Amino acid sequence: MIKPLNDNVLLKKEVTENKTASGIILSTNESKEENIGLVVAVGDGKIVDGKKIAMTVKVNDRVIFDKYATTEIKYKDEEYLLIPEGKILAVIE
Amino acid sequence: MIKPLNDNVLLKKEVTENKTASGIILSTNESKEENIGLVVAVGDGKIVDGKKIAMTVKVNDRVIFDKYATTEIKYKDEEYLLIPEGKILAVIE
Amino acid sequence: MIKPLNDNVLLKKEVTENKTASGIILSTNESKEENIGLVVAVGDGKIVDGKKIAMTVKVNDRVIFDKYATTEIKYKDEEYLLIPEGKILAVIE
Amino acid sequence: MIKPLNDNVLLKKEVTENKTASGIILSTNESKEENIGLVVAVGDGKIVDGKKIAMTVKVNDRVIFDKYATTEIKYKDEEYLLIPEGKILAVIE
Amino acid sequence: MIKPLNDNVLLKKEVTENKTASGIILSTNESKEENIGLVVAVGDGKIVDGKKIAMTVKVNDRVIFDKYATTEIKYKDEEYLLIPEGKILAVIE
Amino acid sequence: MIKPLNDNVLLKKEVTENKTASGIILSTNESKEENIGLVVAVGDGKIVDGKKIAMTVKVNDRVIFDKYATTEIKYKDEEYLLIPEGKILAVIE
Amino acid sequence: MIKPLNDNVLLKKEVTENKTASGIILSTNESKEENIGLVVAVGDGKIVDGKKIAMTVKVNDRVIFDKYATTEIKYKDEEYLLIPEGKILAVIE
Repeated sequence: MIKPLNDNVLLKKEVTENKTASGIILSTNESKEENIGLVVAVGDGKIVDGKKIAMTVKVNDRVIFDKYATTEIKYKDEEYLLIPEGKILAVIE
Repeated sequence: MIKPLNDNVLLKKEVTENKTASGIILSTNESKEENIGLVVAVGDGKIVDGKKIAMTVKVNDRVIFDKYATTEIKYKDEEYLLIPEGKILAVIE
Repeated sequence: MIKPLNDNVLLKKEVTENKTASGIILSTNESKEENIGLVVAVGDGKIVDGKKIAMTVKVNDRVIFDKYATTEIKYKDEEYLLIPEGKILAVIE
Repeated sequence: MIKPLNDNVLLKKEVTENKTASGIILSTNESKEENIGLVVAVGDGKIVDGKKIAMTVKVNDRVIFDKYATTEIKYKDEEYLLIPEGKILAVIE
Repeated sequence: MIKPLNDNVLLKKEVTENKTASGIILSTNESKEENIGLVVAVGDGKIVDGKKIAMTVKVNDRVIFDKYATTEIKYKDEEYLLIPEGKILAVIE
Repeated sequence: MIKPLNDNVLLKKEVTENKTASGIILSTNESKEENIGLVVAVGDGKIVDGKKIAMTVKVNDRVIFDKYATTEIKYKDEEYLLIPEGKILAVIE
Repeated sequence: MIKPLNDNVLLKKEVTENKTASGIILSTNESKEENIGLVVAVGDGKIVDGKKIAMTVKVNDRVIFDKYATTEIKYKDEEYLLIPEGKILAVIE
């Protein structure tokens, strides 16, 4: 299990299915929806001036993030992203 | 529904219609008006030193923004921009 | 009407008239006077530590500004510049 | 023995074994798992405003790190990485 | 009249005269003395934490400045430089 | 004698001897051990808010440093490095 | 006379004499000793939070400096360097 430290958040990137005219489904990460992900795990929060700042996002949130702020990792054949919470811009409700 | 976090603002970019001499309307985002947008949703405000800073812009404001500070997203076939409020420079009244 | 936010200032760039030997007037923005502008509107001032900092420049001031700090906008066929007040370097009196 | 200073952490990069179809094992660091490492030694912690900040990671933790924040060193024919603790993003439990 | 704002200083660049062997005087700004200027006007000083910091240089000082920190302006056919006082490195006495 | 100022440290880079199969010794700085050095002199420490911060490393320590933070100098035909103490990452004990 | 402002220091770069085998002396600044200089004048010190910080280096010190932090000037046919004191790394005693 991956446990993010501080204010880091573990995301699973959404895979967009592109259906062609003939019904063939193309799985791709190349669309503009590439900055939507699912929260898989969250850190305990950053400590600022000795106080822990609570996290806003929670597991299972679908979030929009700044894709230039992520670290890509591969673990047990799955790909994940780690990102500091401040680079998560919005939640899809 | 997209809910911006902290001081982020969700914008819909304005599409400028360019009418040619013969009356054909060309829809384009390439004009200089490309940094005008409509506020679709606003975050709750950033927390600084434990206090929440209220947002100045509100839904339906037409705003001028620094286009280099935006994150483009596509959601349900619509394109949006996310931008921190501090990068919104003016409101069109 | 464009209402600048915070410490932003709305400028109208000065157009320099270059008279040729034969008296023809060439209108151009390409001269070195391209960083002189007229203040059209000012924001309410930036809030620092909960206090609003009053603006120094005012509408109708002719000012010299750092042209690399501007955002160009086009609104109702007129071109304007938005610039934070701190990037206005001098007033022409 | 290498003793990290301040908030630095000494890591040993994990070597991923890639088994080919015929069972040949290829040892490589080139996979995406290249940002997983084992903590070999930790510093005493950074001093901020006269107070020592305790370290969160400990020897033998398997960690995920920002690979662009490391300093590579070779010591007694072994390769190690030094990284400030803040650039360790997650622990694998 | 150009009135610098805050801690800005208005300079007139010195023109170096290069005398050729035959006594012809070449006026040039291309020599290494291009970062020497004459103070023409000074701002009122920057406000830091609500207090105005007095200016050190004064009108008619010959000063040496960091030429990469200047903004070039042309006003009534004269060329000037605007520079924040902190980028003036020395006074020639 | 070179006396480092503030928190600077004077290092002598270690020269790695590469022995070839035939026993010939090649002296080289090109190995990965190029960021190991010997402390030759240390500054008195940086002054922060009026208080001197004591130095952690001392003369004769073998240290690992961030090689991109050094200033190379040549003095009396010897080559040295100057580096701020914060860029020394570990001590070899 | 050049009087440095604040924490600036005026240096005269050392010219290294390279003697060839036949005894010819070549004067050059191109050696690695190009970051050694002689202190010619010092500023009064920087003011931080209303208090003047005394200068550490003094006239006639031979110092080692970060050559990328200098401003080159030419004054009365002599070449000098201006550098903030914090970029002087060591004194040669």
